[in-house]
Amino acid sequence: MKEGKNLQKEDIKQLIAIRNDNQLKKYLEDTHHADLAEIIKELDNNEDRQYLLEQLDNEVAALVLNELNPEFVAELLEQISKDKVSEIFVEMPFDDAADFLGELSDNEKEKFLKLFEVHDAQDVQELMDYAADTAGGIMTTEYVAIPENITAGKTIEVLREIAPDAETVYYVYVINLQNQLVGVISLRELIIANPQAVISEIMRRKVISVNVKDDQEDVARLVSKYDFLAIPVVDDNQHLIGIITVDDIIDVIHEEATEDLYRLAGTYSAEEDLSSARFTTALKSRLPWLLITLFGGIISGQVLDIFSHQFNTVVALTFFIPMLIGMGGNVGTQSSTVTVRGIATGHINAGTAIKTILKEAMVGFSLGTVMGTLVALVAFVWQDSLILGVVVGLAMLVNMFTAATLGTLVPIFFKKIGIDPAVASAPFITTTIDIVGLVIYAILAVLLLGVV
Amino acid sequence: MKEGKNLQKEDIKQLIAIRNDNQLKKYLEDTHHADLAEIIKELDNNEDRQYLLEQLDNEVAALVLNELNPEFVAELLEQISKDKVSEIFVEMPFDDAADFLGELSDNEKEKFLKLFEVHDAQDVQELMDYAADTAGGIMTTEYVAIPENITAGKTIEVLREIAPDAETVYYVYVINLQNQLVGVISLRELIIANPQAVISEIMRRKVISVNVKDDQEDVARLVSKYDFLAIPVVDDNQHLIGIITVDDIIDVIHEEATEDLYRLAGTYSAEEDLSSARFTTALKSRLPWLLITLFGGIISGQVLDIFSHQFNTVVALTFFIPMLIGMGGNVGTQSSTVTVRGIATGHINAGTAIKTILKEAMVGFSLGTVMGTLVALVAFVWQDSLILGVVVGLAMLVNMFTAATLGTLVPIFFKKIGIDPAVASAPFITTTIDIVGLVIYAILAVLLLGVV
Repeated sequence: MKEGKNLQKEDIKQLIAIRNDNQLKKYLEDTHHADLAEIIKELDNNEDRQYLLEQLDNEVAALVLNELNPEFVAELLEQISKDKVSEIFVEMPFDDAADFLGELSDNEKEKFLKLFEVHDAQDVQELMDYAADTAGGIMTTEYVAIPENITAGKTIEVLREIAPDAETVYYVYVINLQNQLVGVISLRELIIANPQAVISEIMRRKVISVNVKDDQEDVARLVSKYDFLAIPVVDDNQHLIGIITVDDIIDVIHEEATEDLYRLAGTYSAEEDLSSARFTTALKSRLPWLLITLFGGIISGQVLDIFSHQFNTVVALTFFIPMLIGMGGNVGTQSSTVTVRGIATGHINAGTAIKTILKEAMVGFSLGTVMGTLVALVAFVWQDSLILGVVVGLAMLVNMFTAATLGTLVPIFFKKIGIDPAVASAPFITTTIDIVGLVIYAILAVLLLGVV
Repeated sequence: MKEGKNLQKEDIKQLIAIRNDNQLKKYLEDTHHADLAEIIKELDNNEDRQYLLEQLDNEVAALVLNELNPEFVAELLEQISKDKVSEIFVEMPFDDAADFLGELSDNEKEKFLKLFEVHDAQDVQELMDYAADTAGGIMTTEYVAIPENITAGKTIEVLREIAPDAETVYYVYVINLQNQLVGVISLRELIIANPQAVISEIMRRKVISVNVKDDQEDVARLVSKYDFLAIPVVDDNQHLIGIITVDDIIDVIHEEATEDLYRLAGTYSAEEDLSSARFTTALKSRLPWLLITLFGGIISGQVLDIFSHQFNTVVALTFFIPMLIGMGGNVGTQSSTVTVRGIATGHINAGTAIKTILKEAMVGFSLGTVMGTLVALVAFVWQDSLILGVVVGLAMLVNMFTAATLGTLVPIFFKKIGIDPAVASAPFITTTIDIVGLVIYAILAVLLLGVV
């Protein structure tokens, strides 16, 4: 099946290369806009892209452009004729149009906005004003709303008319005269209902909605929890101003998971996908975290310098430094990852925070006991010194306990003071643990080996 | 709004505690099953849980149980009366029933299956036979399928009748006499269509479907790409055997993101959420990776032992070990994370693999040049030795280049030979990089410092 898809894509690229309009048209009718978007991305040059866009119906072209990132679209549209651009543009859903306009200069923005009818232009302008990672930033204004006093049969008639323009027709929202959200009815319920039934009698009055300023992550959590296909967005006065559909929620879930993952690994970028990012973006996304590690490394070095007499006297102490650092970093990364994910999925919240920290500390202590014993045995057998084994084993135990506790505490603390917990990432946590671990190790050596 | 929700939940818990049936009933009517599931989880004991379940309509109780993890449900159901269990059980969607039965012993499984009608029991049994992470494992058999020769009007009548039993009515699948999938029509299209129109004339014939054995991650990718609300599942002969709805796809996306994140951090467990996992599960999920690190640590120690003469002669060499290890681990983790995520999102595939590896190697080289220069300066200023600066700086450059290259190469290689690339996790990569980095460092010291 996938093979077939790829073959078809290659055929289309061929037809574009040789500018075979007739054959191409036949292929294009049969190709999903998401696939067309992939083809556009994969084409070698803007002339080919422009040619392909011109072969598409305006409506299809708008759908294709929606699949692409707004920056790329802005670049692309500059290449093609202004007339074609306006024709495509007015077919775009308002939320996508707003995203795209957000990438343009004020001047160009004005120009594009004039292509819409006055009322539509206002809608698009309003959408642009919301922060990108809020409910307002991802909602669309193309929903279906009805008054509560019409019948189910009449509602279906209304749906028939506006279906082509709405993002979804599967939920119909019910509003009062002040445009406040008072109910919801699904198309599934509508087709089962008696056509004579009045909406106010059959709608659900308890509507779960989000505020336009809510964080997109919270919105995603609600939609996931309740298995909605869309969720209504209201302002502070309960006025219905938009909806967010499940396909946009899926994008948010992907985006947030990627963001957490990148931050945890100590790379961050506003661009969503670093695996295909530009070279300079890739560099810039990593340098800050490496500088943290460099700084931590210098402090670790200073610690070794301060205790260099001990490490020089008992050379074997040095052999265990990589193991100690590796193990502490490992446990710290495990704990901070589990904690950051737990916060993201809502399993860790204000109520469970203390319990989580205590549990992780216990886990660290238990792991430390097991691994400490193992390491002590290794040290004893390898270096034939019981006391060295005790020093190394104890250092490992304390180190792992500290690592697990810090790895859990720091993200929870960050969350509490309003910093993204994922910033408590591998580099940040492991660097701290490196330093703490080395100090503990050196002090234990001084105390137990009596080397001063 | 959320505040209100929590207050309501607390009220319900209170009413359960004092067994106030009448008041409770009123509250329960108003509460979404996803919230009821949260309450069940949060209750202190099984008596309260049992009491709450008994106050619910069987249909609602089934929905509530679907929200909980099957293991927990199996435990819970053992506590309550067999009659109530059977009543709830037959209301469950087949896919959830199958998930739950999968947790039981063969004996109990038989007992539960007998509660279903013969035909339904077969459906459930078949669903159990598919691997949990395949399309078959997440699909449901409660879809709507019609023959192609009936009219749009007739189809809506059919929908009206079966709407209560189907997972979704928003897509109607069209099958031929051999039960092969030949088309699809959305409810949106149906209500717009002329009621007299025959389905075969208005349906879409190009249906994107998945094979029952396809990996759930691939299915999620298709649904995300095409913004579907559901996708049909077929067997090798194109027979329609189920559908997967978007809410289940969202669960898959969450599950896969968590799994990748955990594996990358070197923890793994079959349980989805480690932040609320049992103590022993938390321990077991981490130990294997720590043992890898321990083993790597021993080898690193051996390397230091072999070159102990060099490190003893030029003590300052030791000071830079934590920095070198930290930095290599850092870059390796960054590269492997970006690569694993790129593979998961489909941005890295067979076609782009080589390009990605080359780009990451270049990134590693550039980062290494910048950080190596910095570290060389630090070493020079701190220890007042130009040649030491050169050794440390060069070691850093080679180390970061190796780390970035390995961090990218290993996951791509793992993917190619059919191992989950996320297993090329922090512990695995960083341990390898530690050893390689130390060997390079020691060799450079021997060559440039002339200490032998």
